Amino acid sequence: MFIAAMGVPVLAQTVDDRLKRGDAVIRDLNRGQPQPALERMRQEFPFLAEATEAYALGDVWSRPGLDSRTRQLAAVAAFAATGQLPFMKVHAGYALNIGVSEEELKEVIYMITVPAGISRAIAASQVLSELFAERRNARGPQ
Amino acid sequence: MFIAAMGVPVLAQTVDDRLKRGDAVIRDLNRGQPQPALERMRQEFPFLAEATEAYALGDVWSRPGLDSRTRQLAAVAAFAATGQLPFMKVHAGYALNIGVSEEELKEVIYMITVPAGISRAIAASQVLSELFAERRNARGPQ
Amino acid sequence: MFIAAMGVPVLAQTVDDRLKRGDAVIRDLNRGQPQPALERMRQEFPFLAEATEAYALGDVWSRPGLDSRTRQLAAVAAFAATGQLPFMKVHAGYALNIGVSEEELKEVIYMITVPAGISRAIAASQVLSELFAERRNARGPQ
Amino acid sequence: MFIAAMGVPVLAQTVDDRLKRGDAVIRDLNRGQPQPALERMRQEFPFLAEATEAYALGDVWSRPGLDSRTRQLAAVAAFAATGQLPFMKVHAGYALNIGVSEEELKEVIYMITVPAGISRAIAASQVLSELFAERRNARGPQ
Amino acid sequence: MFIAAMGVPVLAQTVDDRLKRGDAVIRDLNRGQPQPALERMRQEFPFLAEATEAYALGDVWSRPGLDSRTRQLAAVAAFAATGQLPFMKVHAGYALNIGVSEEELKEVIYMITVPAGISRAIAASQVLSELFAERRNARGPQ
Amino acid sequence: MFIAAMGVPVLAQTVDDRLKRGDAVIRDLNRGQPQPALERMRQEFPFLAEATEAYALGDVWSRPGLDSRTRQLAAVAAFAATGQLPFMKVHAGYALNIGVSEEELKEVIYMITVPAGISRAIAASQVLSELFAERRNARGPQ
Repeated sequence: MFIAAMGVPVLAQTVDDRLKRGDAVIRDLNRGQPQPALERMRQEFPFLAEATEAYALGDVWSRPGLDSRTRQLAAVAAFAATGQLPFMKVHAGYALNIGVSEEELKEVIYMITVPAGISRAIAASQVLSELFAERRNARGPQ
Repeated sequence: MFIAAMGVPVLAQTVDDRLKRGDAVIRDLNRGQPQPALERMRQEFPFLAEATEAYALGDVWSRPGLDSRTRQLAAVAAFAATGQLPFMKVHAGYALNIGVSEEELKEVIYMITVPAGISRAIAASQVLSELFAERRNARGPQ
Repeated sequence: MFIAAMGVPVLAQTVDDRLKRGDAVIRDLNRGQPQPALERMRQEFPFLAEATEAYALGDVWSRPGLDSRTRQLAAVAAFAATGQLPFMKVHAGYALNIGVSEEELKEVIYMITVPAGISRAIAASQVLSELFAERRNARGPQ
Repeated sequence: MFIAAMGVPVLAQTVDDRLKRGDAVIRDLNRGQPQPALERMRQEFPFLAEATEAYALGDVWSRPGLDSRTRQLAAVAAFAATGQLPFMKVHAGYALNIGVSEEELKEVIYMITVPAGISRAIAASQVLSELFAERRNARGPQ
Repeated sequence: MFIAAMGVPVLAQTVDDRLKRGDAVIRDLNRGQPQPALERMRQEFPFLAEATEAYALGDVWSRPGLDSRTRQLAAVAAFAATGQLPFMKVHAGYALNIGVSEEELKEVIYMITVPAGISRAIAASQVLSELFAERRNARGPQ
Repeated sequence: MFIAAMGVPVLAQTVDDRLKRGDAVIRDLNRGQPQPALERMRQEFPFLAEATEAYALGDVWSRPGLDSRTRQLAAVAAFAATGQLPFMKVHAGYALNIGVSEEELKEVIYMITVPAGISRAIAASQVLSELFAERRNARGPQ
């Protein structure tokens, strides 16, 4: 249970607790696997790995008050609108992992034409198509 | 019923149909009222008013396949991440109008720290606070 | 003839009309050929393909009131300034196709140093150089 | 005559020459007047004033190879697409001063919906409307 | 002493420790005063206030390995280049408080012309001029 | 000696002087070597090559009033925050060449999480890791 959701800072939480929570979140989002980019940062950029795991995953991504599906779709929108497509792909993959449909992801990309332009949406659609193809290939013929 | 959702372009639809649909959407989102910025554009920028009403509202915002609440929250994320705060405020207002809670909006802003920085989230939080205050003032003392 | 240019929305126009107009525009800009990225979107992102063809090409790109050369150069400026270089390359190619000179494209990139920085202009110049080389290679030795 | 246009750096040009050329350019664009923001920078940010006058105005804006109207419209597109609206307003004003029509400026803003979103175009249209009103007020009743 | 600087995450640190460190940092940067924008966030956006104080100030701003002057100047550069001018002003104020000179701040803004354009630098120079004037007014006549 | 630093424009300086100064600066920053991207621009984009060498390197990068290490770190921050990673890599390389440590570069990237998001910092960290590896490979086994 997340006391943070009650509107007060959680004063007693240790970085260790936050890292554990972040590790649990990434396994939930990533089908039980660690996140490769995060693992590669640990040796050379330990503080950034910690910020990603303890803050982004442990603090932000684990917050109650918004369901995980909506939070991932909003993240996909933000990454697509700012042209950060490798991150959009990672979070679109998380969204699929937790039950968001391909159609819902497409709808977010359609919407991006309004705040960020048709070109940003086209570029995002190409990366989503790659992701969908990778998932189909991984599942193999059916 | 939206044939567009079946994955084929809707060849017979007229601009007039799309404008009517856009007008219905804006009244749904804006508590039965026209949108003032849209009205001001009609005389001097008629094509842009048409694009906003027929395309953004009539085509994009009325699409099925994603619930309106999620689409507005994703739009809030995109506007906040790109620093387009007056538009973020308009869409956060629409979100409140269709039943999104203040807490859910705050969660989207918290998440924005990850793709766009703590500063972008702080700036967005200040605009959200203004919106929340305006709504409380409009409701009057209780 | 485009009634839209007279400052009133064109109420009777169908999506089918707009798609046909967009198809004519793309063939004008692209030397009679369909646009490959647009074709690839049709199956998986049909709404975005429609928005590109009916809205971007059919509505925006076919508007009177500004000659096509100036509109393409302004689009090249916008794509270069926002770092959307694959789109800049496509529109610079359209510009060449309709008679804009390499020198005029270079001048737009030089100007980009003022609103967007010398680095954005350098990055754009590298993509323009690729485009110019591809065109020379396609023409073969002379 | 601008030797730079022949594709070779102009080795003998002094900063003084470039500043004089920049001053001539600004007077051409600004109806014979100095540019107020530039004048204010001279005391506290002399290097930036010099860069603006000698480089932006003296080198870039005076280049041959592209007519001034097209260069200003491309600048308006770049400033609108990146959300730098006070600069867009200044350059739209220059464009009007050298004979660009209000309609042509509107067309550039309509086009901005494609690379930068409908919201960026709406925000730009509001600033253009202000500029057009200021010009009408300055001319007085007719 | 900051164990984080040795390249290992600090597992035992509590959020309370981090908030205290953030509070100490803000008082160092802000001449012993709390930061007004941070204080305003505490009630309505408690998680964002915590992220600002515990993460941005407590974790990032207190890191050894780079002197505070250089970190503030780099922050000024990042805020100016991305057009986040109210934040640039806050951090330029911190820089002055810890002994950075007005001339050094101006040099960072001059440099911004290269990655972000002359216009971004002009806009930043106007905000810096405001800050310098406020400081002179606060000191009174001498 | 740079009279510009005294707050007055340097009226007598020729473009030739500025290009020579730029050439000296690039050799200082780049271990005595010309900069390959700059050399490639000379033939096809001579004005942009001149702007880079005479303005960016000759005027901006050679300015006194800020030490070269701080200016390069601020440039790294600006390029990372705006997602211009190939330029960030070039300037991070210059920083290493003039004695900035890998740790100092990492600290700038950590700081970027605050104005530009954790994702922008992660993307920058990956490019820095490439640069560090290239430098280690160039030095060979020790």
